[in-house]
Amino acid sequence: MCLFFLAVFLPRSHGKSFAHRSELKQAKRIVVKLGSAVVTRGDECGLALGRLASIVEQVAMLQNQGREMMIVTSGAVAFGKQRLRHEILLSQSVRQALHSGQNQLKDISVPVLEARACAAAGQSGLMALYEAMFTQYSICTAQILVTNLDFHDEQKRRNLNSTLHELLRMNIVPIINTNDAVVPPPVPNSDLQGVNVISIKDNDSLAARLAVEMKADLLIALSDVQGLYDSPPGTDDAKLIDIFYPGDQQSITYGTKSRVGIGGMEAKVKAALWALQGGTSVIIANGTDPKVTGHVITDIVEGKKIGTFFSEVKPAGPTVEQQTEMARHAGRALASLLPEQRGEIICCLAELLTEKKDEILSANRKDMELATATGRLSQPLINRLSLSTAKLNSLAIGLRQLAVSSGNSVGRVLRRTRVANNLELEQITVPIGVLLVIFESRPDCLPQVSALAIASGNALLLKGGKEASNTNKILHQLTQEALSIHGVADAIQLVSTREEVEDLCKLDKMIDLIIPRGSSELVRDIQRAAKGVPVLGHSEGVCHVYVDNEASMDKAIDVDSKCDYPAACNAMETLLIHRDLLRTPLFDQIIDMLRTEEVKIHAGPRFASYLTFSPSEVKSLRTEYGDLECCIEVVDSMQDAVDHIHKYGSSHTDVIVTENEETAEQFLQQVDSACVFWNSSSRFADGYRFGLGAEVGISTARIHARGPVGLEGLLTTKWVLRGEGHTVADFSEQGSMKYLHESIPVPQGHIN
Amino acid sequence: MCLFFLAVFLPRSHGKSFAHRSELKQAKRIVVKLGSAVVTRGDECGLALGRLASIVEQVAMLQNQGREMMIVTSGAVAFGKQRLRHEILLSQSVRQALHSGQNQLKDISVPVLEARACAAAGQSGLMALYEAMFTQYSICTAQILVTNLDFHDEQKRRNLNSTLHELLRMNIVPIINTNDAVVPPPVPNSDLQGVNVISIKDNDSLAARLAVEMKADLLIALSDVQGLYDSPPGTDDAKLIDIFYPGDQQSITYGTKSRVGIGGMEAKVKAALWALQGGTSVIIANGTDPKVTGHVITDIVEGKKIGTFFSEVKPAGPTVEQQTEMARHAGRALASLLPEQRGEIICCLAELLTEKKDEILSANRKDMELATATGRLSQPLINRLSLSTAKLNSLAIGLRQLAVSSGNSVGRVLRRTRVANNLELEQITVPIGVLLVIFESRPDCLPQVSALAIASGNALLLKGGKEASNTNKILHQLTQEALSIHGVADAIQLVSTREEVEDLCKLDKMIDLIIPRGSSELVRDIQRAAKGVPVLGHSEGVCHVYVDNEASMDKAIDVDSKCDYPAACNAMETLLIHRDLLRTPLFDQIIDMLRTEEVKIHAGPRFASYLTFSPSEVKSLRTEYGDLECCIEVVDSMQDAVDHIHKYGSSHTDVIVTENEETAEQFLQQVDSACVFWNSSSRFADGYRFGLGAEVGISTARIHARGPVGLEGLLTTKWVLRGEGHTVADFSEQGSMKYLHESIPVPQGHIN
Repeated sequence: MCLFFLAVFLPRSHGKSFAHRSELKQAKRIVVKLGSAVVTRGDECGLALGRLASIVEQVAMLQNQGREMMIVTSGAVAFGKQRLRHEILLSQSVRQALHSGQNQLKDISVPVLEARACAAAGQSGLMALYEAMFTQYSICTAQILVTNLDFHDEQKRRNLNSTLHELLRMNIVPIINTNDAVVPPPVPNSDLQGVNVISIKDNDSLAARLAVEMKADLLIALSDVQGLYDSPPGTDDAKLIDIFYPGDQQSITYGTKSRVGIGGMEAKVKAALWALQGGTSVIIANGTDPKVTGHVITDIVEGKKIGTFFSEVKPAGPTVEQQTEMARHAGRALASLLPEQRGEIICCLAELLTEKKDEILSANRKDMELATATGRLSQPLINRLSLSTAKLNSLAIGLRQLAVSSGNSVGRVLRRTRVANNLELEQITVPIGVLLVIFESRPDCLPQVSALAIASGNALLLKGGKEASNTNKILHQLTQEALSIHGVADAIQLVSTREEVEDLCKLDKMIDLIIPRGSSELVRDIQRAAKGVPVLGHSEGVCHVYVDNEASMDKAIDVDSKCDYPAACNAMETLLIHRDLLRTPLFDQIIDMLRTEEVKIHAGPRFASYLTFSPSEVKSLRTEYGDLECCIEVVDSMQDAVDHIHKYGSSHTDVIVTENEETAEQFLQQVDSACVFWNSSSRFADGYRFGLGAEVGISTARIHARGPVGLEGLLTTKWVLRGEGHTVADFSEQGSMKYLHESIPVPQGHIN
Repeated sequence: MCLFFLAVFLPRSHGKSFAHRSELKQAKRIVVKLGSAVVTRGDECGLALGRLASIVEQVAMLQNQGREMMIVTSGAVAFGKQRLRHEILLSQSVRQALHSGQNQLKDISVPVLEARACAAAGQSGLMALYEAMFTQYSICTAQILVTNLDFHDEQKRRNLNSTLHELLRMNIVPIINTNDAVVPPPVPNSDLQGVNVISIKDNDSLAARLAVEMKADLLIALSDVQGLYDSPPGTDDAKLIDIFYPGDQQSITYGTKSRVGIGGMEAKVKAALWALQGGTSVIIANGTDPKVTGHVITDIVEGKKIGTFFSEVKPAGPTVEQQTEMARHAGRALASLLPEQRGEIICCLAELLTEKKDEILSANRKDMELATATGRLSQPLINRLSLSTAKLNSLAIGLRQLAVSSGNSVGRVLRRTRVANNLELEQITVPIGVLLVIFESRPDCLPQVSALAIASGNALLLKGGKEASNTNKILHQLTQEALSIHGVADAIQLVSTREEVEDLCKLDKMIDLIIPRGSSELVRDIQRAAKGVPVLGHSEGVCHVYVDNEASMDKAIDVDSKCDYPAACNAMETLLIHRDLLRTPLFDQIIDMLRTEEVKIHAGPRFASYLTFSPSEVKSLRTEYGDLECCIEVVDSMQDAVDHIHKYGSSHTDVIVTENEETAEQFLQQVDSACVFWNSSSRFADGYRFGLGAEVGISTARIHARGPVGLEGLLTTKWVLRGEGHTVADFSEQGSMKYLHESIPVPQGHIN
């Protein structure tokens, strides 16, 4: 083994290994190593066909993308075991039948099969299966059997090399296996005690050796472990290592006892480091998890965070996991500050925004120039990216207002109860914990959201768009500068633009709430990706304006609702009109006003049936147009409108236009949406317009926070009980105490 | 086609089809029909190997359970197409090379391949693949090629029948396909326009015919549609039909245009109904969804809600989807009642509990007898199942208290803002919507949770355990009786015990909040299963008691915390002891008290290092023992205790025992848990003890509700804005109005 790792006969002049997962997309030549646990079923007898087929599917896809794929596979032993067992049963039963004169199959015991015999018996079947599978993708395969020793003979090595190159040139996928029939008998080793298969080490080192020999860009080693852990998996603090640097090796504690685990893992790591040194990037990942098997290889090549990535380059900054830890820690310090101290930080940030405005604007200009040059952003997005002195000034004003109004947000007493004599209960407000805010384009989000997090004592991870990276960087630096006046600079972290949103959403247990600020698609994607972390946001805003038969003519609410800013989530999408209004002057006026604003009208089925020449019929009454388009539908009554809204709406914001107070109040009571308005534009559904100060977004969730969410949405509560040694046993039937449950007045006060 | 469906030569004397999905577990003989979309890839050229392999895996598993599996498969055409295309390319290029004298492959066009030729070319390869795959599970296969016409010839039919029976007897899986090489050329039909494959109808009717002929218990027809919809999929109101009765056929609108869809679907339904009439249960489901392919067949046989189940028996009651709709509708009426009316309902329920106590107790006795007879419940569970007159009386008292205290819960104004002149904003409390409460064993949950739902105006679905079904049934009847005094009986629904919890959790968009009441396992399972529906609950309660160096000797808080009810989530699991206390009388006293109560002690690593003869070391400091066991660990200081709690705790309830107020206040401030207590037992973390009246559970979530959750946790808010035609344009820079954002006082008042 040592001999092998010390061998230095390889030319290492080819490309360096990749520094970051995101570069893996460029990998051209890829070796996929399939461990025995991946290829075989739980009992190590018979192949795991489903897994194997989906691996072939992925390898074929990558090959057909123009990459050069090679497979190093186990499985011959398992295939052969399955086959031989069958044969032995058969031949034994025949023999028994001959001897005893009757056909009793009961007491036949299957002998322990020798691994090398199994390998020989299984090899042809395994290859036939691979070939049949790859044929389905018009891909030819070739069988290569080698042993580690073949690499020591210079001539053999050169022959192997040229054979493989010739196969790759002809678009053939080489399938490589150890020539198990001729290797020495398996030594029982501590890693695989009692398991009579060829030592796992062979295929790991074989794959590493082959990858370097063939100058492969990437070696993907799949087995039944998630990757490399910093301490034996299953112990209290074991963490999967995302990126492993050769220099980090001391930080790992290898266990001794586990089966596949750590002894085997140590050999895997050695092989991986050797390949890395030879210029091949390596990923060790789990190929047996049914949830990911179908896309584990393609996901790895796309740069997703799967398994452990071996890299020679150690990035300068902390990992996102470390950033989250730092944020939580500093966030707790932030939450323990006095309210005035948090206010000072926000005011300091406001000052920095005006003081350092030249630096901010110059960074912003860089982003703008890049965006214009690459031409990848539409004009509205470029507008949202741009900052100006005026924008910075109004940002600063907003921040100062927040600093003043947020005084008693954290630690406010909501409820006090005297549970018993000298046993007092308080419910107080506390920060939620660690927030992850994901925002697109608009860099002015950053100071706003940061100020809200500071005011509410929350730690914050910020993930901005690539297009605003320079602006976000300087704004984040200023935020940390402000935080540092009270020693809590780390409470707000800016996540590298290289991190995938999907990976961030999986940091459950580390993040308490995700707030996406951006398009509906972003929100929906994040809601899908978030595993166990709540997401605050709205994915759809299908808002209605219902014009009642008693509506007044001078209210242009529908036009303002639709046209003030059609792309907003609180813009009207469907206009519901009372049947009696059809062909009245009011109706004509409404249509004329929408026409003047060039709103494209789609007719709902009922509306269409009333018209001789109707506009195009709607595809779905649930459409969110997000543009100067809307649907018009006719309803029989206020009640009918409510039913329509419940059936097709998204419970965001719905409006009634009427002069009849009773009708209005019924509508306001019945409509089950976050915001319900009477005679006012749907566009008022907004934190600033509601007077909440800044807002983190609008929520259509039904729990926690609903509608525009300000500071209060970033707080939760905790229950504090102060006693004098009270036990619940004191309150049992035999006990000496009685529950009082007296309400004690709490100091009143609002926060905005 | 008609001929075929009218044929009545079959003996239908064998067993009836199953009435409910839960009975599918008993299916012995199963036909799995694989449509062309399942077996082939998107381009209908080449097989979808991953899917095929995982289907083989499932069929093999079921076969090895002793069932008799048969497969009706497509795929020969696709396999052959792939093969022939390759051959043609090759032969054309050879020809071209011969003619032109050079090797130009560019302009070779692949001719349209005739489906029957493809089928002939692909059949052998397809069968070889099936055989290779099944061999991995020690299962033999046999090839059967038939046409629908074969069933018309009595002799052929009998031959086929006896061949298949012989194969099944020998534990061989027959793989059946239409003999495509000899069927008439495919007629281009409207279902499969432009797709040159054998009409899908053949395999559907073939599978149905075969299933009935072989008296199969179940036919699983897999294709690329989810199942049968009540209107064309993709339209606004299209709903997947869970269970389809022959009598429901009129209620379905078949579309005309879609590709696989509805024409093909109509034929599928005809075939399914024909099989059903012949005594075979049928399920039409999607075999192409990558998320479920790996277990779609086994899930179906386990009775999970997948695709559309065809049943001849129409159950008496509504489906759970209909129940949910009814509940939401009646729930809205409940929410519009006056608070006094909701109070009347609760009081009425309280009265019924005492009035009808004989009936309740007799139903409860039935459940108890069954539970004792089957012996499947442990004694503690049986105790929790049992009701008594005393329990019913105290339930009634609790309900009456709730009726009184919940007066102003719904519609309470939390915030009022004058946004501008004549534009007033209110934030008011409203019900969350539809709650799903899942509870085990304890039937007294039912009236408690129902009363909370009524008081908060929420609709409620209740899912109780099988063991309490009789008790739950009568209690639910009484609840509906009480609700009916104000015409909202449907607001609370009891879900059939046959419904799987996992299926209920997937009713997203219909259910707003799931509340599991039961073991940690139940909560964890539900958190995993819930797709997009928030779950309120705690999955773990690792509670700590920290005994400070300034603790007083007479506080037996740790004993009460551990021993009062060790199985509760608020029981102490880890006792943290200040280092200075080791070997003091206080320490000895603590240990003695725990020993007296027979608490088994596990030592944390530091504690173990201080002892000469230590008890067993803990496996994990995060263990929830839930029994008379606990961990003891040593810490250096209060700060060290806080760090330990943050690292290993579950943020449920944590306690400090100290006489030093400053230390206590720091602990209370710093510990980031739902409940933090000073000198009081962790067992006080409970809705009743907190004075919240009834509780729906304890939440360790960090948003919405935290700690013990009473009425307030079942409410959310809505924003009501009343204007006089205000538009946001009025507030623009050119507009005439200015935001005021004046706070208007709101009436104060607590709800419990």
